[in-house]
Amino acid sequence: MNKSVACIGMGVIGCGWATHFAGQGIEVHAWDPDPKSEDLLKRTIEQAWPSMERLGLGENASPDLVFFHGRIEEAVESCSLVQESSPERLELKQELLSTIDKACDAECVIASSTSGYLVSDLSSDCEIAPERIVVGHPFNPVYLLPLVELVAGPKTSIEALNTAESLYKDSGKVVLRLEKEVDGFIADRLQEAMWREALHMVANGEATVEQLDLSITAGPGLRWALMGPMLTFHLAGGEGGMAHMLDHFGPSLKSPWTRLEAPELTQSLRNAVVDGCIEEAAGRSIADLVLERDRGLTAILKTLKDLGNEFSEKEQNCE
Amino acid sequence: MNKSVACIGMGVIGCGWATHFAGQGIEVHAWDPDPKSEDLLKRTIEQAWPSMERLGLGENASPDLVFFHGRIEEAVESCSLVQESSPERLELKQELLSTIDKACDAECVIASSTSGYLVSDLSSDCEIAPERIVVGHPFNPVYLLPLVELVAGPKTSIEALNTAESLYKDSGKVVLRLEKEVDGFIADRLQEAMWREALHMVANGEATVEQLDLSITAGPGLRWALMGPMLTFHLAGGEGGMAHMLDHFGPSLKSPWTRLEAPELTQSLRNAVVDGCIEEAAGRSIADLVLERDRGLTAILKTLKDLGNEFSEKEQNCE
Repeated sequence: MNKSVACIGMGVIGCGWATHFAGQGIEVHAWDPDPKSEDLLKRTIEQAWPSMERLGLGENASPDLVFFHGRIEEAVESCSLVQESSPERLELKQELLSTIDKACDAECVIASSTSGYLVSDLSSDCEIAPERIVVGHPFNPVYLLPLVELVAGPKTSIEALNTAESLYKDSGKVVLRLEKEVDGFIADRLQEAMWREALHMVANGEATVEQLDLSITAGPGLRWALMGPMLTFHLAGGEGGMAHMLDHFGPSLKSPWTRLEAPELTQSLRNAVVDGCIEEAAGRSIADLVLERDRGLTAILKTLKDLGNEFSEKEQNCE
Repeated sequence: MNKSVACIGMGVIGCGWATHFAGQGIEVHAWDPDPKSEDLLKRTIEQAWPSMERLGLGENASPDLVFFHGRIEEAVESCSLVQESSPERLELKQELLSTIDKACDAECVIASSTSGYLVSDLSSDCEIAPERIVVGHPFNPVYLLPLVELVAGPKTSIEALNTAESLYKDSGKVVLRLEKEVDGFIADRLQEAMWREALHMVANGEATVEQLDLSITAGPGLRWALMGPMLTFHLAGGEGGMAHMLDHFGPSLKSPWTRLEAPELTQSLRNAVVDGCIEEAAGRSIADLVLERDRGLTAILKTLKDLGNEFSEKEQNCE
């Protein structure tokens, strides 16, 4: 299969995608109405390449795999995937996606990098094959962070999802596949809850920007590169895991620890969370997970120390 | 100054503190009504020591620096700091703190590891010197995560805060000092907002436990060990930083991306957040911060790769 990819819209995210694909040896056809975008791409590649090299480039990786085109129709021709990363304006995206839909090959999948719009909004002007429109939401910097949220719309076909998923995975991405539409997808819902609570705290003089950041980087943030919030709390419950945690600390869901009201901790929610943790642990005992966490934390702390990211300086600014 | 510390309550958190202090060469006097706690401490030290060694032990560090006492009064005698880490039950903590307050030296500072109670609740039975009661909230595992939230109550003296801060810092901790009481302090407010949103998503069938965790560990979680949520968004705004971000993406605060309603983005909130980011950046340009982030991310990703924490296995469980 021809695996070339079109990158439409070459701002920070589009340039990040093009850099990522070129680093994996995949040919990229780029288009952006702004002639300055070629320069941004050049800078992004220069900056990203040593990092990508350190983590391992793909076969035939080369900055020369990115080709700019003067017309969008030319760029998307003969590609397996079109990755649209234009500014977050719905009408603009609808128009671009409709143009792409008309110009690209029949078997091509069209993905939008949008962080907010749903496929059902984005594909409303696509007349040719709306079933091949998906959201492929990356995280900045795209050439380093592995996650892509692959989100279907009500009309999206399983084939389009499968094709997008295998193209992303072949390029080294980690794919989180959502077969139904959820506002904000998953990661941004979680990020946004934290961000809004932080804004409330600043608005109410409860914490400064620096205190908010330090509370994450010197604490829970060090764990989240290793274990998500659910598995982290599975370990907070001691040997009893998430079941103990929910049964004993359930009442703290009523505490005013955030402005967000918690859902009712029904037996069915409790079981879904407990079973989910056990499934995710995949046979690893709490003791195994503790060892894994400590090994990972030590390695991360050592790495940060070697980089000179000590906390002492930051901390002094904070008082 | 005599720097010995008393650890009262030797569950997971108390044993974590004792291990941390012993690893920094500080003498620890421990007490717990459960005779099994000596065994838990032994296991904690065995498990933690190689990690602490890798990160650098303090002078004269030794597991033999921890002494168990049969009576709480004996344990707290002649210590500079008493760290109370009993179960999260208010009456129990009030009673213990009152006993400690009566038994310890005049210049001793008394800190509670509570994650939820305020100093004003905790110190209500302390008759001798309530001005020396503080919250010193650590993060699990205490012997690895640097953060301690040091929280004052309305009666707490500046001297007690200063003493606690310098004792913690001398032991290698990063201190986030809060001179006024806020429910949930800072880190737990942010963690709890994310946790509650996650519970809502499970309750509504919007995401599984594994999807929630993967959305963090393969994405934003990798950044949070380096930069908190505020500085992360400072970089998301491109060269314009947080000012551009808030001015252009401000309207997304009205989006249903979480169940938590955002505060009104007033000019004064906007400025507080923008100025806070500029202050935290401390002269580093966006380009400097991007390089710093990429260098850190690459190092963390390389570290995780060397540890065998590849995403491929986890991902397969996730679909």
